Amino acid sequence: MTQQQAEDDHSPSPAELFTRAVALLTAQGDLRVWSVIISVFGDLALERNDVITGTLLTRLTTLMGLKPEAVRVALFRLRKDGWITSHKTGRSSAYRLTDMGFRETQAARTRIYAPSLPEPESWQLLVSRPMVQAARAQDEKTLQEQGFHIIGPGIYLGAGNLAAGDGFLAVDGQITRLPDWLRAAVPPDGLEQGFAELCARLGDLSALLDGDIPALDATERATLRVLIVHHWRRLLLRQPNLPDRFFPDGWPGVACRGRVMALLARLERPALDELQETPG
Amino acid sequence: MTQQQAEDDHSPSPAELFTRAVALLTAQGDLRVWSVIISVFGDLALERNDVITGTLLTRLTTLMGLKPEAVRVALFRLRKDGWITSHKTGRSSAYRLTDMGFRETQAARTRIYAPSLPEPESWQLLVSRPMVQAARAQDEKTLQEQGFHIIGPGIYLGAGNLAAGDGFLAVDGQITRLPDWLRAAVPPDGLEQGFAELCARLGDLSALLDGDIPALDATERATLRVLIVHHWRRLLLRQPNLPDRFFPDGWPGVACRGRVMALLARLERPALDELQETPG
Repeated sequence: MTQQQAEDDHSPSPAELFTRAVALLTAQGDLRVWSVIISVFGDLALERNDVITGTLLTRLTTLMGLKPEAVRVALFRLRKDGWITSHKTGRSSAYRLTDMGFRETQAARTRIYAPSLPEPESWQLLVSRPMVQAARAQDEKTLQEQGFHIIGPGIYLGAGNLAAGDGFLAVDGQITRLPDWLRAAVPPDGLEQGFAELCARLGDLSALLDGDIPALDATERATLRVLIVHHWRRLLLRQPNLPDRFFPDGWPGVACRGRVMALLARLERPALDELQETPG
Repeated sequence: MTQQQAEDDHSPSPAELFTRAVALLTAQGDLRVWSVIISVFGDLALERNDVITGTLLTRLTTLMGLKPEAVRVALFRLRKDGWITSHKTGRSSAYRLTDMGFRETQAARTRIYAPSLPEPESWQLLVSRPMVQAARAQDEKTLQEQGFHIIGPGIYLGAGNLAAGDGFLAVDGQITRLPDWLRAAVPPDGLEQGFAELCARLGDLSALLDGDIPALDATERATLRVLIVHHWRRLLLRQPNLPDRFFPDGWPGVACRGRVMALLARLERPALDELQETPG
């Protein structure tokens, strides 16, 4: 596009562009502040000891339209729940993930940023002894923590290298038949609509940003990245961690993943240092 | 053993020995005549077109203590049910298995004479869609005919190369955990006692025949073989066709199989021609 053409199209200014992009990503008005802050740490604090200043947190959350009072409450809650610690540096505060917080965000990152979920080398199908539902609930909890999926009463499917208790029949190998009834049962209720809506919004965002990303500064890129990651994460982590072929044909989570990956690749992640040095 | 020693031991004559051996194998008094005749064909008519004369059938069944009238009724029933056909040869009749009869005895032979049941190269575990018991009954029938075993409601285990209908989740591979509850559930009720009793009787028979088998003629050997195969078959075919490790520890079917194989190896199978030429 030549300069002349761009002017003919009445392209928005970088500031207008950013405002519209944020509006697209916050139109639902349902941002949970404490969860957004986790997304900030998850996308920007990649090293164990990375620190995020209160100044940067305030700047990012303000650009997202969140109220300072709500951010203060959320930070208090995250400290109380053991996700973050804070310390004073001069007049302002700085925040860091706890061991637990880092472990959790690290584990989620392997799912959030995966361009596709590869088939594991081997699957394990477990069958438990016949038992009443009350007894089964404990098994279900333990096995889900180990990454197994409940296929039916007392039937669990997981990646083949997971450990399990005694008392199960186990067949280790390949999945050679994956029936439609199981694929239909894999996604939790409501998730399809959620992915479809996000997919549409990300499509609009892609169109909006088309060709104009270099005009966004580091803080603006970070803001948009965090919002995209946030929405994607909230849906993705509700769906079972299974390869695409386990989902119904045309599952919108697949297209959504493609759009997330494309946008994150275009909205290059700024280094934390660069962000913190930017004047507020 | 020298001639002198044998006389010192008051060894039984070959005729006494045979009488005692038959008594051991018919002590239960529960021989089903039509089933015994199937055992005769199964052990002696190995080729598709082998014919067994009425004369030989009468001789063998008489030695087992069966009544000629019961044998006639059984032969009539076997013809009616499509197991055998008969034709006249001069003054007497001759019998032959039908296609169905040969197929069935042939299929059973692979289990009856197997010194051990090898682990298949691959297992297949199937999980069906949730369904009511009435609908499941048809699946269970179809899959059992294909050699699958019912592990639980809608859960089937079979050798990996078997075909199955659509609609199942299938994992193909190795069994890496085989729990005690499943092994305890594998044998049908009553079978353990049956195998234990047969095992004891075969132990007595082995002791009785120890060293004296060369004295038995072809008809006597055939009679004892058929009785052994008959008892073994009646129990074996009631148990799921699974390798020994699927049964509870100390399962008497395993020891029983060993004794059957050892006795059959010692009681060499006479050729059908040799038996038919023997004067009645």
